[in-house]
Amino acid sequence: MKRLFWQILFALLPLCAAAQTIQSPSGQLTLTFSLDGTRPQYALTYKGRDVILPSHLGLELARDKHASRGMEETDLIDGFAIEKTETSTFDETWQPVWGETRDIRNHYNELAVTLRQAGAGERILVLRFRLYDDGLGFRYEFPSQPDLNYFLIQDERTEFRMTGDHTAWWLPGDYDTQEQQTQESRLSEIRARFHDAVNWGNSSVAVFSPTGVQTALQMRTADGLYINLHEAACVDYATMHLELVDPQTTALTTRLQGASNAYTPPPAPARAPLPPPFTFVSHLTPDATGLKGAMQTPCRSPWRTVIVSDDARDMLSSNLILNLNEPCALDDVSWIHPTKYCGVWWEMIVGKSAWNYTDELPSVQLGLDTPPDFRLAAFDFRRTTPNGRHAANNEKVRRYIDFAARNGLQQVLVEGWNVGWEDWANRWKRDVFDFQTPYPDFDLQGLNDYAHSKGVRLMMHHETSSSTQNYERYLEDAYALMNRYGYDAVKSGYVGDIIPRGDHHYSQSMNNHYLHCVQQAARHHIMVNAHEATRPTGLCRTYPNLVGNESARGTEYEAFGGNRPDHTCILPFTRLQGGPMDYTPGILETQLSTWSDNTSWVRTTVCGQLALYLTMYSPLQMAADLPEHYERPDLAPAFQFIRDVPCDWDDSRYLEAEPADYITVARRQKGSDNWFVGSKCDENGHQTTLKLDFLQPGRTYDATIYTDAPDAHYQHNPKAYNVTRKTVRCGQTLKLTSAPGGGFAVSIIAR
Amino acid sequence: MKRLFWQILFALLPLCAAAQTIQSPSGQLTLTFSLDGTRPQYALTYKGRDVILPSHLGLELARDKHASRGMEETDLIDGFAIEKTETSTFDETWQPVWGETRDIRNHYNELAVTLRQAGAGERILVLRFRLYDDGLGFRYEFPSQPDLNYFLIQDERTEFRMTGDHTAWWLPGDYDTQEQQTQESRLSEIRARFHDAVNWGNSSVAVFSPTGVQTALQMRTADGLYINLHEAACVDYATMHLELVDPQTTALTTRLQGASNAYTPPPAPARAPLPPPFTFVSHLTPDATGLKGAMQTPCRSPWRTVIVSDDARDMLSSNLILNLNEPCALDDVSWIHPTKYCGVWWEMIVGKSAWNYTDELPSVQLGLDTPPDFRLAAFDFRRTTPNGRHAANNEKVRRYIDFAARNGLQQVLVEGWNVGWEDWANRWKRDVFDFQTPYPDFDLQGLNDYAHSKGVRLMMHHETSSSTQNYERYLEDAYALMNRYGYDAVKSGYVGDIIPRGDHHYSQSMNNHYLHCVQQAARHHIMVNAHEATRPTGLCRTYPNLVGNESARGTEYEAFGGNRPDHTCILPFTRLQGGPMDYTPGILETQLSTWSDNTSWVRTTVCGQLALYLTMYSPLQMAADLPEHYERPDLAPAFQFIRDVPCDWDDSRYLEAEPADYITVARRQKGSDNWFVGSKCDENGHQTTLKLDFLQPGRTYDATIYTDAPDAHYQHNPKAYNVTRKTVRCGQTLKLTSAPGGGFAVSIIAR
Repeated sequence: MKRLFWQILFALLPLCAAAQTIQSPSGQLTLTFSLDGTRPQYALTYKGRDVILPSHLGLELARDKHASRGMEETDLIDGFAIEKTETSTFDETWQPVWGETRDIRNHYNELAVTLRQAGAGERILVLRFRLYDDGLGFRYEFPSQPDLNYFLIQDERTEFRMTGDHTAWWLPGDYDTQEQQTQESRLSEIRARFHDAVNWGNSSVAVFSPTGVQTALQMRTADGLYINLHEAACVDYATMHLELVDPQTTALTTRLQGASNAYTPPPAPARAPLPPPFTFVSHLTPDATGLKGAMQTPCRSPWRTVIVSDDARDMLSSNLILNLNEPCALDDVSWIHPTKYCGVWWEMIVGKSAWNYTDELPSVQLGLDTPPDFRLAAFDFRRTTPNGRHAANNEKVRRYIDFAARNGLQQVLVEGWNVGWEDWANRWKRDVFDFQTPYPDFDLQGLNDYAHSKGVRLMMHHETSSSTQNYERYLEDAYALMNRYGYDAVKSGYVGDIIPRGDHHYSQSMNNHYLHCVQQAARHHIMVNAHEATRPTGLCRTYPNLVGNESARGTEYEAFGGNRPDHTCILPFTRLQGGPMDYTPGILETQLSTWSDNTSWVRTTVCGQLALYLTMYSPLQMAADLPEHYERPDLAPAFQFIRDVPCDWDDSRYLEAEPADYITVARRQKGSDNWFVGSKCDENGHQTTLKLDFLQPGRTYDATIYTDAPDAHYQHNPKAYNVTRKTVRCGQTLKLTSAPGGGFAVSIIAR
Repeated sequence: MKRLFWQILFALLPLCAAAQTIQSPSGQLTLTFSLDGTRPQYALTYKGRDVILPSHLGLELARDKHASRGMEETDLIDGFAIEKTETSTFDETWQPVWGETRDIRNHYNELAVTLRQAGAGERILVLRFRLYDDGLGFRYEFPSQPDLNYFLIQDERTEFRMTGDHTAWWLPGDYDTQEQQTQESRLSEIRARFHDAVNWGNSSVAVFSPTGVQTALQMRTADGLYINLHEAACVDYATMHLELVDPQTTALTTRLQGASNAYTPPPAPARAPLPPPFTFVSHLTPDATGLKGAMQTPCRSPWRTVIVSDDARDMLSSNLILNLNEPCALDDVSWIHPTKYCGVWWEMIVGKSAWNYTDELPSVQLGLDTPPDFRLAAFDFRRTTPNGRHAANNEKVRRYIDFAARNGLQQVLVEGWNVGWEDWANRWKRDVFDFQTPYPDFDLQGLNDYAHSKGVRLMMHHETSSSTQNYERYLEDAYALMNRYGYDAVKSGYVGDIIPRGDHHYSQSMNNHYLHCVQQAARHHIMVNAHEATRPTGLCRTYPNLVGNESARGTEYEAFGGNRPDHTCILPFTRLQGGPMDYTPGILETQLSTWSDNTSWVRTTVCGQLALYLTMYSPLQMAADLPEHYERPDLAPAFQFIRDVPCDWDDSRYLEAEPADYITVARRQKGSDNWFVGSKCDENGHQTTLKLDFLQPGRTYDATIYTDAPDAHYQHNPKAYNVTRKTVRCGQTLKLTSAPGGGFAVSIIAR
């Protein structure tokens, strides 16, 4: 018996020690899994070049006072042996409800490693790797098992060990905001740049480490490899940040001194040796108690993703994150549709008009005097003096509806329609909105009737002020109201600090909240476009009614001091990896001082704005400027492109791309042979040789070409542009020049 | 001009310096308000004897990161001058929907002091005192004002300066539980007794100071004054604890060392000098961030209450806390009714049967596989093996319905009817119950139909497991289901740690949650009986559908090692001050080992149990023992009293009372001339001379007298009792003996 034991042990030893390797379908990526002693680790190569050096995987668990009753506290860091490994191949082509292409191929080789950790109880952990030709996804899976039913995550300790001091486009890691301007630097420069990156005037700063960064993180190696780190399918789990171990790092998760509003997590014990410099270690967003997650088996982490290529265009055409998400969970998707819209919005952002109805109240308590029937909004605004600046009024909304109807825009967003805007932000008000009661000058029934009579819908707006407790209480009534009046899309917002107090925008519970809203909305056939919510992770595949998010620095910042000209040449590499952004482009009057007291100005040319409808893919596209600007003789020709450009596609070709420099993409309109091409460049301008080899051979097309004038410049001459028309055919070439901060847009209509 | 200034100043000086005094309507209480320098203070006397020595009033405010935008941080502690004072008188008699008496007189003299605090901005604070013949209520009022629109409370610093080292009946101050056994000690002994008081085996310990105690706090002075400190109308404000300054106190709000699960608040700066020993200072329950409240003016604190008398019976007949609450907020109260009920409950508490349906699952995820339609409980329990111990099954519930119908009990509570009990507690499970889906052996429609056919209703049970986020998501559906099937009362529960994590049972947000549920229930015509919720503060006057709470150590602890025999002689002085308790009396088979493996036993005699239906006033009274016990020949005669005793009254007379010793009360049945008398005593037994002078003169009554047998004893001989019948008239006297841990009960039926 004893001899048999040793025989089995030695038979198993090679299995334990040997590295497990899989290759991507084309063979150009190789994933290696092994044990470093008893710690799991993985490595990734691309065409024989290292992408991720051997990096550890694991989680620190938290001690819970209920531990003796089944809550575990032994870390899932080491002490592992390989129980078994399984490999498989998957290949399917699926059709998204909306997207950049009609078909998406999901083709990967998979390695599933089952690990056993001996200890007080025996525990099983599965590491699942999916290797695509464009990258890697892997996740932790926690099967149902006797000795691991519930656990609390102190932090996830997934390492991404870089091969060198790469160039990175990064945002400071923050638990509550992702609206910073992207920083471009070497990894070794993050620490020195961090303070400036954080000190950008937003009060919601909640940073955790002077080398903490957000995902999706885009990098470029010295030898021309592009690497993107992000996550897919973040469901009921905290959003992941990355903490860089650089030469000065002495411990993980240090508190950042001097950031006055910084959240102070308890310092994590350095239970594992510090990984080598230029290693990223995952850092999850905590809840109010500093914990990162409460888990019940069976469960799993989101996928951790590494997209890699030596061609930057592959970063943008990758479907890896969508593919790692679950298929569509909705039986009926007939009610989901890409949408172009305008809205009563930009004039408030710029400061010309207001969301609130009155200025005479120091503060508003909706329903202060309403115990009997428990209505939040019994406060009667008709008794107050209007400030005369309230934009969401009947007359203005009707003008927007008329404008939308005339120009083929399907919906009109109206912000500030509902009571509560007098003191909605940063007051720790729980009962801030009821999502039910319009201001006296907004005729809910009449305006919807008017819109419908014109073939237009109103788009709902739910600013929650981050009081999620309040929003969830009203959610069912709010969606039912939308159904009653004929709204089918809602822009929601999460400005300010989370209520319940102490929670963060990207925590497990908040991520659950956002998805809860999307799921409940689906029951009501409502499309959701959530602003200030967690950065997306491809969940729009599973819930295609999640048609958009903000979750990054949008066009609004052009009114708050401006976005750098290269901003929109970075976002598709970073923020857009997880899903579409409601960037709200189309500001053709770039000088705000021409019509308001706002001295900020848009850091693009007019053609740069047009290009965004193509380079910033979204099924939801706003024509964000004022109708009166679009109708101005100098801008109306450019607006024609916004009228013409669709937002639903059968095919997309990324023709040129370099992070923070330029992006050129051609897209074929859904169900047609019409193509639209957009190109956006940074402050240096760009020359494009546009080869029309994507057109159908033998067919004739009418092209309308919107280009920056030769002397155009995003600062000095932003509104100089030319519109030229010509007949084009497959194989022809167009030489197009983008001005500094500019771009071009081309519509190519099949005859 | 300068001279005029000094003239005005000197004219105002007397106003500032002079004490403001009011007396109670009878003149026996005197309230004095004055400024101690610039700090407000108050003092209270009763019949010329000091009750509260001069004590400061004020609040510490927290610094908020949004302070520059209107959040204030200057404490409301000092720097005050008197702006004006107003006195008034109020006298009304009102009728509660249910209560101990048909009429309640609300008669007080009021002093409202408007204080002005100069500083960065000028701020107004109103202190309102209402002086009754049975005590004092006062509160802070924060009017709407330009320089104080929003503020965060670091802590309230209301002082109650005692005149000496009183005897107190206290519970350790705790943010999450109030189910401890009451301690009786001198104030000076609290610190030494604290550790033992806390170390009682409940994992939810969240204490904050070794001299922290809960309210209602009952005290007795050396010279025979009874003083009770509590609060009234706690709405959208944190529950108040009291921290005793004793001779060892060096700072307020110290962390208790050595209590392993203790919450760790940041130590509060000692901004004000420490008050003298034997002063209680208010200490509010924090949220997850350690803050005590987020306020928006106009707003107000709850009333702080001081009930005082030299006769302990006045403590029990006082309506001061109800009077300080707002009148009924419900237009229609016709659907609210006192209720006697039985239920499928005690056998699970004792451990004989189970709430859960199956034992074969290590953990349960309701709706694990249900993205498509988002139903939480798609998990099919029909596929699991029943454990055979599930009590809430069709057969048993039908037997309880039959029993209720036979014995005049209006409702049958059924716990464990709904899926999720397999792993419901202490797991940090957010999605723990759906309040919708019955276990396979509970026929929701059929059992309700059966009950209704017998003139009985089922009583709903909603254990939330303190996952309030989950409960609020299901609340509307859960109440709608009750309406659909004909339930009109719900027992809700808040066992375990609050989700959102880090929050506490008695925080501002949780207090808002409990009231939100009561308000929403009222819309559905549902009565609420919330267990483990905040201790009540008289809100049942405003929302009479709040028919009960637990919020103290109930009968269930008789199965967990027992309640001390004096326990129920204390609760009416403490817990019941704020509202009725669902104590669930009526355990006539006091030896649990006779029918289960539970070796605990009830620390009263049978007659002691009967007495509780009178001494523990509640409009909701359970007959908590098993039907088969009530039907046993030895216990059925005693059960007759439970059948007979009503739970709705026109009048109540407290005949004898001494905290922790004995309570005797006579009550007249609603709309009749029948009287019921109950007396409960501690472990020492008690002799009562019951004068029947409350009966109508000249009328003849049939009395049935349930007394302990001469050799009865709560431990050695608990089930020995006699039932005697006699004819009685007004003016007669009955001499009745209560055994140690016993009592008596008398029904006096008018001919």
